[in-house]
Amino acid sequence: MKPKISIITLGVEDLTRARKFYEEGLGLVPMSYSSESIAFYDMNGVVLSLYPKDALAEDVTISQQGSGFSGVTIAHNEPSKEKVDEMIEEARAAGATIVKESRDVFWGGYSGYFQDLDGHLWEVAYNPYMDLT
Amino acid sequence: MKPKISIITLGVEDLTRARKFYEEGLGLVPMSYSSESIAFYDMNGVVLSLYPKDALAEDVTISQQGSGFSGVTIAHNEPSKEKVDEMIEEARAAGATIVKESRDVFWGGYSGYFQDLDGHLWEVAYNPYMDLT
Repeated sequence: MKPKISIITLGVEDLTRARKFYEEGLGLVPMSYSSESIAFYDMNGVVLSLYPKDALAEDVTISQQGSGFSGVTIAHNEPSKEKVDEMIEEARAAGATIVKESRDVFWGGYSGYFQDLDGHLWEVAYNPYMDLT
Repeated sequence: MKPKISIITLGVEDLTRARKFYEEGLGLVPMSYSSESIAFYDMNGVVLSLYPKDALAEDVTISQQGSGFSGVTIAHNEPSKEKVDEMIEEARAAGATIVKESRDVFWGGYSGYFQDLDGHLWEVAYNPYMDLT
């Protein structure tokens, strides 16, 4: 396997609502491939996609039923603790649920978590050892 | 928000088993930041991380309980239908469950899905419109 992730797709209940959150709330700009049925965002190395959860499950050919912890988190790193706090505030203002307020964490970094309107978990982190911003 | 995803973390039941699947089975090479408690892989633009699911939930500060469809899929694109088939066979040989055998799909591409040993969903796709290989 060539080490490459092409797209991360998040299943959403309401694509219009989800697009508003990511575009108006967080400022992401949709790629031209986006349409009324799917949205794509160039995340500088990987593409983020939003797609209705029922259609995504249908594409996978599994039931769309699921609950609780997904077991998946997406990290967005920032270059400083202050920038982490700013990003958490941006997410809060956009309507996200702040699951964990940003704080110093055991591995030596600083991070917080928010959930988007469909419960997808984003970590916002400052990592002094690994620059992935 | 700067359009950047830094890390995708997959929660796993058994890190040793998960590492064996991704490293010996799929050929990914761990980054030097990897340790006995976490693994990182440079996926050419985003980092893939494997981390025990209970520890991940604890970091998020939520319950680790969850079942059914996670609502998240990761796509690995290939440059041709033949390469998709080869990648699906590589995953099958590594012990993955092939959820959907590769086939022509409604949007004009060709894809299949496999689940890793913890149920995380990977789409393997050929997309004639968008080269993300």
